[in-house]
Amino acid sequence: MKVASFAEGGRDGRLVVVSNDLATCRPATDGTLQAALDADRLVPDASDRAFELNQVSAPLPRAPQFLDGSAYVNHVALVRQARGAEMPERFWTDPLMYQGCSTFLAPTDPITGDPDWGIDFEAEVAVITADVPRGIAADDAPSFIRYVMLLNDISLRNLIPDELSKGFGFVQSKPPSACSPVAVTPDALPGWDGRKLHGTLNVDLNGAPFGRADAGVDMTFDFGDLISHAAKTRPLPAGTVIGSGTISNRDAGGGPGKPVARGGLGYSCIAEQRMVETIETGAPVTPFLGAGDRVRIWMDDANGNTIFGAIDQVVAPWEE
Amino acid sequence: MKVASFAEGGRDGRLVVVSNDLATCRPATDGTLQAALDADRLVPDASDRAFELNQVSAPLPRAPQFLDGSAYVNHVALVRQARGAEMPERFWTDPLMYQGCSTFLAPTDPITGDPDWGIDFEAEVAVITADVPRGIAADDAPSFIRYVMLLNDISLRNLIPDELSKGFGFVQSKPPSACSPVAVTPDALPGWDGRKLHGTLNVDLNGAPFGRADAGVDMTFDFGDLISHAAKTRPLPAGTVIGSGTISNRDAGGGPGKPVARGGLGYSCIAEQRMVETIETGAPVTPFLGAGDRVRIWMDDANGNTIFGAIDQVVAPWEE
Repeated sequence: MKVASFAEGGRDGRLVVVSNDLATCRPATDGTLQAALDADRLVPDASDRAFELNQVSAPLPRAPQFLDGSAYVNHVALVRQARGAEMPERFWTDPLMYQGCSTFLAPTDPITGDPDWGIDFEAEVAVITADVPRGIAADDAPSFIRYVMLLNDISLRNLIPDELSKGFGFVQSKPPSACSPVAVTPDALPGWDGRKLHGTLNVDLNGAPFGRADAGVDMTFDFGDLISHAAKTRPLPAGTVIGSGTISNRDAGGGPGKPVARGGLGYSCIAEQRMVETIETGAPVTPFLGAGDRVRIWMDDANGNTIFGAIDQVVAPWEE
Repeated sequence: MKVASFAEGGRDGRLVVVSNDLATCRPATDGTLQAALDADRLVPDASDRAFELNQVSAPLPRAPQFLDGSAYVNHVALVRQARGAEMPERFWTDPLMYQGCSTFLAPTDPITGDPDWGIDFEAEVAVITADVPRGIAADDAPSFIRYVMLLNDISLRNLIPDELSKGFGFVQSKPPSACSPVAVTPDALPGWDGRKLHGTLNVDLNGAPFGRADAGVDMTFDFGDLISHAAKTRPLPAGTVIGSGTISNRDAGGGPGKPVARGGLGYSCIAEQRMVETIETGAPVTPFLGAGDRVRIWMDDANGNTIFGAIDQVVAPWEE
């Protein structure tokens, strides 16, 4: 089953069940996706209407919680390598996770911010959970996953070093993320192996291929691990969004056997491209985003049909 | 005006307007506090009912966002001093803030957790905002404050060092916080000066006075500063909760001229008491919380009447 929310009827939107090809939809009697998650059931109406992509909000515009992992440890290792810092060995066994802003942008909302902040995208996979009891084991956690979607975790790179050096994580450097138009139940996802999603996550920058990383490769911590980590000391309320962190393939070319290389397509954010440039040439080349830049994030099935619809955002001119 | 939510009618509770003495209440037609904040208006019904303290949830059981500052920089300075670390000078001008868990406990919910985690309380003042535009200036921010309440920001001290050393802030070490029964509009608060709350924040541990810090003293960053910091790169949705961080008076005795001293009552968490003990004697003396320990947090007006009602929590026996 695929679901989306139209930006109508209130801040939490109006829930619709969307046809597999994203052509038509049916309103759900539960009203909002949050209400359906609260009740842990979803009852679609019988009447079809056209699915208007330009009317959707995020599937869950106002989630009770967003916890974003950094499950592709290759990404973290590159960050450290670029600045000449050691990565603690435990980063391979103890997930990195931060509490993020849990209001979400619509898939085509503009990206806003001062270009001096170093605006970047991060293409991710995220899951939406039912109520998860505290202390859940990683093996038991996947049964609480109700939906999978894509995220653009917009990051303000130039604000991160000062903020992280204070030790309290991200606030100013991580404004709201954008979601794919549609969230999909695990049973309707061909690439879902029960704990993670396999398949190419496409990222285009200004119409040119930028990233073609496989979401199922190099995911050191799967969603079972991430949910278990998140729930160690708290129950997770229905509607909790757990993010994977930026998809990153160790093989930057996206195929087997190729080393990390500039111009590879194994990354899903500009920062990582810049790190590889720094490691190879001593300095970054690719600039962060500016007004008019456009990022498109999507995933196709084996037949070339879109699974989640596309996140498609343009950077707005900055007015302080 | 004072408001509370009864734990009925759904996860967001049922909003009531409470009489100043907390004796009676009237249901509000808006249904939930979140709905009233979304609409930025509140219409009470005409019919009174008794205000049953034992039926309340948090005023906003499921806020869209919780951003917790550390505005009493004396607290941070003590943490650093206890472990022999320098505090960066900019901590006096650049607020510390983390994104916290935005589901909240009822005022009498048990505190749950493994005592090995180092369970502590932190008594705080928090505000609930209307919609705040991105980029709001500190001087303009207080007009967006709709309610003030008290928080017990439960902290798991023994999990903090490992988690903070990873750089991504608190997740496991900061489970849900508990709220006072009642949230109060600024105009109904005698100690509200427009940007912060003055008055003694009482903390009792197992029935004995533990903290009597004044919330209006040593608050380096007021709520205007904190809201402005939170909104630098994002708008804040209605219902955003902004916390002050643990109240801490530089003068641990609670009166003028007294130096930091063991046995003073200027602190609002066990960790700070232990830091003073460490600084004075080389080792902490006061243990963290265990099963059966009880913490009570409240504030009285000049006539000795409770303003917000009391947070009154007992630590539950731990069962993994």
